[in-house]
Amino acid sequence: MTNPVTKDRRHFEDLAIGEVIDLGRTSVSREMITSFAREFDPFPFHLDEEAAKASLLGGLASSGWQTGALSLRMLVDRFLANVASCGGLGFRNLKWKNPVMVDDIIGGTATIAELRRSASHPQWGIVTLDFAIGNQHGKPVMTMRLANLVECRHPETGV
Amino acid sequence: MTNPVTKDRRHFEDLAIGEVIDLGRTSVSREMITSFAREFDPFPFHLDEEAAKASLLGGLASSGWQTGALSLRMLVDRFLANVASCGGLGFRNLKWKNPVMVDDIIGGTATIAELRRSASHPQWGIVTLDFAIGNQHGKPVMTMRLANLVECRHPETGV
Repeated sequence: MTNPVTKDRRHFEDLAIGEVIDLGRTSVSREMITSFAREFDPFPFHLDEEAAKASLLGGLASSGWQTGALSLRMLVDRFLANVASCGGLGFRNLKWKNPVMVDDIIGGTATIAELRRSASHPQWGIVTLDFAIGNQHGKPVMTMRLANLVECRHPETGV
Repeated sequence: MTNPVTKDRRHFEDLAIGEVIDLGRTSVSREMITSFAREFDPFPFHLDEEAAKASLLGGLASSGWQTGALSLRMLVDRFLANVASCGGLGFRNLKWKNPVMVDDIIGGTATIAELRRSASHPQWGIVTLDFAIGNQHGKPVMTMRLANLVECRHPETGV
C-alpha cells in the first residue's frame, strides 16, 4: 500500500549510512533570543544584556534549547521535508559546547549514522542522525544524535 | 567571593540526590502547537488537523521539541529560578513516549539523580535531573536526563 502523501519522498530504502546533509546557516537575532527565552527559558542571561555580561556566558546568549529547535528546523528544510518521516523518537547525547550570542550565524551538518528496520513494525525504519552545529568562527556549538521514524517503501521485504 | 545576584539562591551544596521536584502542570493549546511548529517543526501533522488525523499521531500533536521546551520552562519556574544556575550542559536519553495532543495537560517531576563537583572548576558543580513527564490520562509523554551547572557556595572545599 503506497501512502499518497509521501510516495514521492525519500523512503527508508533510499537512505545510506554516511550521507552528509548540509544544514545551511541561520542567523540568530536579539529578538529571536529574547522572545524564545521569555516563553521557555526566562533566565536573566537570555533576556538582559547587563545580567548576561556578568554571567558565565559573557553576553546575551540563546537558550540552548533554542539552538536545538533551530537545528531541527534546518533539518526539516534541508532533509526531512523530502523524506517520508513519521516523526522523531528521541535524542541522545545532546551537548552544548559554546554559547550562541546575538547575531551569531549557526549551521553545520547532519550525518546518517545508523539505519535500522523496526523489529516489530515492518512498515517503518529508524534513521539515526548525528548533528554537528558550529558558529561563524568555526567553533562547535552543539552536537546531538536524533532517532527518527521513516516509512519503508517495501514493508514486505521484512526486517 | 559571594555572587551578589545568586547569594540567596540554593547552591550546589544545598542539593541532595533523590530530591523530587514537582513540575506542576501546563495545558497545551492548539495555538501553542501550531505557532511553535510553524517556527521550528513545520510538518503537516503539527499544523493541519486533517493531515494529522491521517498520520501516525492520529490527530494534531505538538512537536516533541516543544514538549521538551515546556518541560524546561516548568523546571525554571519550580526549581532553577531559585538555584544559582549557570546554564545547561546538555541532556541524555530524551525519549518521546506518547504524543501531546491539543488541550492535553502535561506535567510531572524532575528527580536529582547525580551531583558531581567539576574536576577542573572548583566553583561549579553539575546536577543531573531525570524528567518524567506525563499527560492527564496518566500516560508517559517524555523522559530525559538533563545536566546543569550550579555555583558552589564554598569553592575552597575542593572537589
